[in-house]
Amino acid sequence: MRLLASTDFALRILLRLVAAPDRRLDTPGLALATGVPRNHVHKIVQSLAAAGYVRTTRGSGGGVTLLRSPAQIPIGAIVRHFEAEQALVECDRADGGACPLMPDCALRGILRRARGVFLAALDTTSLADCAPAVSIGNRNIPTLPSPRTRRKSAGASR
Amino acid sequence: MRLLASTDFALRILLRLVAAPDRRLDTPGLALATGVPRNHVHKIVQSLAAAGYVRTTRGSGGGVTLLRSPAQIPIGAIVRHFEAEQALVECDRADGGACPLMPDCALRGILRRARGVFLAALDTTSLADCAPAVSIGNRNIPTLPSPRTRRKSAGASR
Repeated sequence: MRLLASTDFALRILLRLVAAPDRRLDTPGLALATGVPRNHVHKIVQSLAAAGYVRTTRGSGGGVTLLRSPAQIPIGAIVRHFEAEQALVECDRADGGACPLMPDCALRGILRRARGVFLAALDTTSLADCAPAVSIGNRNIPTLPSPRTRRKSAGASR
Repeated sequence: MRLLASTDFALRILLRLVAAPDRRLDTPGLALATGVPRNHVHKIVQSLAAAGYVRTTRGSGGGVTLLRSPAQIPIGAIVRHFEAEQALVECDRADGGACPLMPDCALRGILRRARGVFLAALDTTSLADCAPAVSIGNRNIPTLPSPRTRRKSAGASR
């Protein structure tokens, strides 16, 4: 089983924001720090902003900031947000899929219940539980060039 | 979150075998009944045979048969068998992945624990729980041409 790349990327971006809560990062900075391609950073930040997890500020000194404390963002909520449309298997698709064994097969219900258990487990943990090492004192954060240097070398920020 | 296509296909093939325990199905027959592409059926049946879930018999009247009762095949075991190498996210890869937030991030452990809970939930159910409608009296099984007719029209069976 695997999560979507967008879920992986969103968790990385959020965890990087947790690691440096007092430092605004723009799209190029987040891409550099998380290994997420820049065009994906932009789309995922927009989705997180629409859901009320982050705020983006334009202009000099702008960037992305968390709108909630890390302890108030369950991992399960982020996974649900990005995986809402994702089918576990063919018969779990929103259009019912094309498995010839349906509807006389109970597999879909069994898999959905197991997914519910997976998400419930993730609901008991938050971003604060994920990044204990980096959220205290900003230890071990990958070194980034300053925003001014980065903007000069990488062009306009988001 | 999603399961691999091979896991989906393996479950369909096994459930089709549960539905017709007294009728041997060959590769073309299983492909027709499950919607799984024929080359995938062949590979998946080989994997299931190597793991001791099914037996294949060649020649006239040959085909694939279950080697255990459906109640003795947990869904979790099949999912584990086909998803053993599958990483949930980048940092869960066997080679450690390339996420710059590692190793100072606890997300991997949190996701792995949730996956364990997901699989444990599937361990409590078996193939027998998935196909109650079709395993009793072979009701609602998609109509297939007889093996003889099928071999004539579809060429050699495996």
